[in-house]
Amino acid sequence: MTTLPTLSYGEYQLVYNMLSFAIAAMVGSFAFFVLARSQVSARFRPALVMSSLVVGIAAYHYFRIFNSWEAAFVFKDGVYSPSGQPFNDAYRYVDWLLTVPLLCAELVSVLALTAAVRGPLMTRMVIASALMVALGYPGEIATDITTRAIWGAVSTVPFLYLMYALWIELSKAIPNQPPRVQTLFKNTRLLLFATWGFYPIAYLMPQLGIAGSTAEVSLQVGYSLADVAAKCGYGLMIYAIARAKMDAAGETAGELTEQPA
Amino acid sequence: MTTLPTLSYGEYQLVYNMLSFAIAAMVGSFAFFVLARSQVSARFRPALVMSSLVVGIAAYHYFRIFNSWEAAFVFKDGVYSPSGQPFNDAYRYVDWLLTVPLLCAELVSVLALTAAVRGPLMTRMVIASALMVALGYPGEIATDITTRAIWGAVSTVPFLYLMYALWIELSKAIPNQPPRVQTLFKNTRLLLFATWGFYPIAYLMPQLGIAGSTAEVSLQVGYSLADVAAKCGYGLMIYAIARAKMDAAGETAGELTEQPA
Repeated sequence: MTTLPTLSYGEYQLVYNMLSFAIAAMVGSFAFFVLARSQVSARFRPALVMSSLVVGIAAYHYFRIFNSWEAAFVFKDGVYSPSGQPFNDAYRYVDWLLTVPLLCAELVSVLALTAAVRGPLMTRMVIASALMVALGYPGEIATDITTRAIWGAVSTVPFLYLMYALWIELSKAIPNQPPRVQTLFKNTRLLLFATWGFYPIAYLMPQLGIAGSTAEVSLQVGYSLADVAAKCGYGLMIYAIARAKMDAAGETAGELTEQPA
Repeated sequence: MTTLPTLSYGEYQLVYNMLSFAIAAMVGSFAFFVLARSQVSARFRPALVMSSLVVGIAAYHYFRIFNSWEAAFVFKDGVYSPSGQPFNDAYRYVDWLLTVPLLCAELVSVLALTAAVRGPLMTRMVIASALMVALGYPGEIATDITTRAIWGAVSTVPFLYLMYALWIELSKAIPNQPPRVQTLFKNTRLLLFATWGFYPIAYLMPQLGIAGSTAEVSLQVGYSLADVAAKCGYGLMIYAIARAKMDAAGETAGELTEQPA
């Protein structure tokens, strides 16, 4: 259990409003991905369903984080002091445990690779991403820096495999894709790398001796922005890939259900 | 009413986060099963509707269990002590009373047997599974070990019938199924058996003299994991069976509404 700092009015409100922004972005994106299923052809719908699940699950967790943040502080004498109620950051790990494997699966799904390539690659990436999150958690809740560093290092192994899968294994599938899809895929991969890059930096903060109110506020704002980019923004990129592939193949969306071949 | 133990910060938080994980998994699965109806042909949609109901009902009960857990403890001096409010575990029995018959029905439904075989088998399994849960409950709330043992033994009778139905009666229908469906069916049946196997172990804990904080935490974590596997994981297996049967029959999903024959 981490000790919470006392926050100024502005600091507390910034996090509070960022968390509310994340809820609005997740709920809005959920509606979009559910409705946008009818804009893509049948083979891209599983990817859009996964986008919906990711932002739906994240919306739930941001509601919980918001409530936990509200309960963890009391406003008195112009500042927000810890109320004694713990602020539960573990919601984030539970969220990632469910959503990060889905994010990997939807990227593989939207490329519409052959079943022989797609199946094993998706399985390996889903397992690696779940391991990456699960192995980070014991370090996150550890009270000493050494334990934190060890689990952090262990969870880097599946992270490196995922980078290998994204840059080496998936790159083999790219030359067969239409040019616009290649560009979009590279940008999506970069978005994933950039947003995932924020999490280890946040994880390392205690090692770097960064603490206090600025650290707590930066962490919460950073996590929220990274999650909106990695879930809502990423889902929009996946949608753009599906539309670009449809254009290249001269496909129309057709009925919401699969048609006879 | 069972007396609650005092829990350490880590013990309380583990259960708290497991319950929240179960809510997120149920809500996410609900969205998936509703959206995935458009990926299967009309004859498999009743099974997916039942999967949706199971996880929807479970999501409701996990919200209740989560709130009951929160109200049952107070955080003071670094530990979680009983608040005096009872923790209501009966939500689980009400949940099982509704969901376990649905789980039986969806397995029979997805196999798409002839109406003559399906109807009577589904009726018998639904009645047996409701009896199994209902007869366990008087034992669960009993204050003495003997009463608990008697009701436990009585509820084993419908449980044994269900094992007979799954391994003997349903096995007769299997040779007509495509090979991949046979494998998936056997794995699904095994998942059901493995997860249901946890409940009598939990039930026997007081008989075995297991009590205190470790028992309470193991019980709640175990129930949550068993429920996620038996509802979300099981529903995904049912979906996989439907897709495998469609592939074997060369079927596509067709319209979401039924077509004139």
